[in-house]
Amino acid sequence: MKATIITIGDEILIGQILDTNSRYISQQLNQLGIMVVERTSIGDDAEAIVSTLQRALSQSDVVLITGGLGPTKDDITKHTLARYFNSPLRRDDAVENHVRTMLERRGIAFNELNRSQALVPECCTVLHNAHGTAPGMWFETEGKVVVSMAGVPFEMQHLMEDSVVPRLRERFALRQIVHRTMITNGIAESILAERIAAWEEALPAELHLAYLPAPNVVRLRLSAYDVDGEQATKLIDEEFAKLYDIIPRNIIGFESVSVQELIHAKLTAEHRTLAVAESCTGGRIAEMFTAQSGASAYFLLGAVTYSNEAKVDVLGVNAATIERYGAVSEQTALEMVEGVRRITHSDYAIATTGIAGPTGGTPQKPVGTVWIAIATPSKTFAVCRDCGTDRGQIVERASAYAVRMLYDELQTL
Amino acid sequence: MKATIITIGDEILIGQILDTNSRYISQQLNQLGIMVVERTSIGDDAEAIVSTLQRALSQSDVVLITGGLGPTKDDITKHTLARYFNSPLRRDDAVENHVRTMLERRGIAFNELNRSQALVPECCTVLHNAHGTAPGMWFETEGKVVVSMAGVPFEMQHLMEDSVVPRLRERFALRQIVHRTMITNGIAESILAERIAAWEEALPAELHLAYLPAPNVVRLRLSAYDVDGEQATKLIDEEFAKLYDIIPRNIIGFESVSVQELIHAKLTAEHRTLAVAESCTGGRIAEMFTAQSGASAYFLLGAVTYSNEAKVDVLGVNAATIERYGAVSEQTALEMVEGVRRITHSDYAIATTGIAGPTGGTPQKPVGTVWIAIATPSKTFAVCRDCGTDRGQIVERASAYAVRMLYDELQTL
Repeated sequence: MKATIITIGDEILIGQILDTNSRYISQQLNQLGIMVVERTSIGDDAEAIVSTLQRALSQSDVVLITGGLGPTKDDITKHTLARYFNSPLRRDDAVENHVRTMLERRGIAFNELNRSQALVPECCTVLHNAHGTAPGMWFETEGKVVVSMAGVPFEMQHLMEDSVVPRLRERFALRQIVHRTMITNGIAESILAERIAAWEEALPAELHLAYLPAPNVVRLRLSAYDVDGEQATKLIDEEFAKLYDIIPRNIIGFESVSVQELIHAKLTAEHRTLAVAESCTGGRIAEMFTAQSGASAYFLLGAVTYSNEAKVDVLGVNAATIERYGAVSEQTALEMVEGVRRITHSDYAIATTGIAGPTGGTPQKPVGTVWIAIATPSKTFAVCRDCGTDRGQIVERASAYAVRMLYDELQTL
Repeated sequence: MKATIITIGDEILIGQILDTNSRYISQQLNQLGIMVVERTSIGDDAEAIVSTLQRALSQSDVVLITGGLGPTKDDITKHTLARYFNSPLRRDDAVENHVRTMLERRGIAFNELNRSQALVPECCTVLHNAHGTAPGMWFETEGKVVVSMAGVPFEMQHLMEDSVVPRLRERFALRQIVHRTMITNGIAESILAERIAAWEEALPAELHLAYLPAPNVVRLRLSAYDVDGEQATKLIDEEFAKLYDIIPRNIIGFESVSVQELIHAKLTAEHRTLAVAESCTGGRIAEMFTAQSGASAYFLLGAVTYSNEAKVDVLGVNAATIERYGAVSEQTALEMVEGVRRITHSDYAIATTGIAGPTGGTPQKPVGTVWIAIATPSKTFAVCRDCGTDRGQIVERASAYAVRMLYDELQTL
């Protein structure tokens, strides 16, 4: 069972927005056992929509489309689909009532443009869009399915979950796709590939191996398509198990598990607490923990002490330390981490202070210099890391190093 | 001048990674005056690569490809391109030396797999990848250009900037593409479209209008393709100027300007300071400000006081207030904002406290309930907003509301 995803909108082609819909839909389809063979983004252009839809139908059983369903003139997906399927538009009363109610609640007057949202091609099945005004549309043609959904990610996701996924499951007899990803650490991709070459060579034909390198991490993904899920998972697990003999020290876990998730679980289970004092990472580390539901059980305080005054007043850093060594220094980092641990009585603490740039660098402390300090019940220490040259990259890298350092300390817990 | 972007990698089709390369390349090409007509993602599959490249060349003058250039067996882009262009691989000494030096610096042994990175099709021009081991490859065929680049975003971006963009500019006589976006606020898309219908109807034929709705904001984009940039910009500005008579109260700015950028500029210019106390937004508001270079001039403190203890100990919230009214209450929000302003002596302050979910909701205070408090030199107040049902969405919406509230207060400054 194959699928093509089409996202429509000039704003994608000019790079004004990032297409996150394709990714979400890909994940959903893979979970369903439907293999995505192509994802294509095109503009609000009738000719492009028609030719892309034709190609998509020639190569797949399911075509999912997002975008171009707004009430304004630049949105042409619905009219183009109506012409493609040679099906005149009809007014759907349920949709009209829904749109009217939605707008009333928001205090917006109902006008002709809103009313046009209730027009749908006669041949389609309307899918209720509980969170927006553009209905989903489900078409069937020569045993294949075409679905058109609003481009607003939130609306599309609910439509997928509430209607499209259950309907696809009902409509097709789907087998499964299994992906499993092993995460390795501390070994370069080329060395890893050399080390596991014999293992790779001997993999069963139905398993596909992919290498996904990232800073400090290489993920190994084994995939099986159109299989019995349980059997394939067992087979993959057996193959991965062999790697424990080949690269025993480099395997840190499976799937997309992140270090902050592992810390979250550990601190929660062990009833230990954490506090964070951030300068150059500006709240990013706090966000990594607080993005997880239940973080309030252990996350006592995140202090973004950007200014020297805040470092002194809130964290109790000695003004003389900053004066003498600078805000970006081992000494300041140590006093920050000790300070935030002292005022919160936390078990663990992280502090960062660095130069995120693009300004503020010096020859001695260039942009990207970051001091990261960790405090535990038994020790306090700081390390200096070069975190790159780009502001966003520096924040991400410094935050990643910091949580990794904390993670290492928790291993003995 | 038209372009197609092809991103290659099974990890994109299964939704394991978000394709940000397409967006970056789209932005670069638009700035160059090259119109992107399609962006396609396909798997590591020779047949798909060949058929997509054929289609891309049939519809565009420039084809930019990323991905599939790693040293491992799952990466097949280079061999597929060599076969497509019927050009045998040769060893490039400069690339081999570069790869060897890079790996040595990182303490990684040079092996056969790394050596294979130095193989390139004879017919291509090698583009130096200063930040990675896979070289860029520039092909010319029947007056058209095909470029293959590494899929690592960082490497690809440097290759684009250092080699591809300058070469495209040199290779083609490019006219320009102009996009200009006006940002409106406080008017629903359908009402806006009705209000400006006559203006839209009378737009010059060469200008294309798009509506881009988002929470609280509708962006209006006017685009002109294949034009003289200066003339088109003037024309667009004239058309936008007319809107000041039609929707005078709803225009807040141009391009991608964000409310936090406007606040950043205002606080910097007026030498005023800001402090933030966050509970449910978990550091997001601090991050919105500290993501901007120079924020240290006004951003005194971001306190992520997730726990009641931190609210009391760090911000000085009265424990009895939390006891009596709850952590998510007007009273607590007010004491938080006053507390963070008091301890930092900031001019302005923001506080948030709410229920980000998915747990913790009650019938009286359902998930999504957020109290936002603002303190200025002359007043302190709080409002309660319903910020949705999804954890990430609640954080985003509450943060957006909060900075908007501060922005409104700064209007009198």
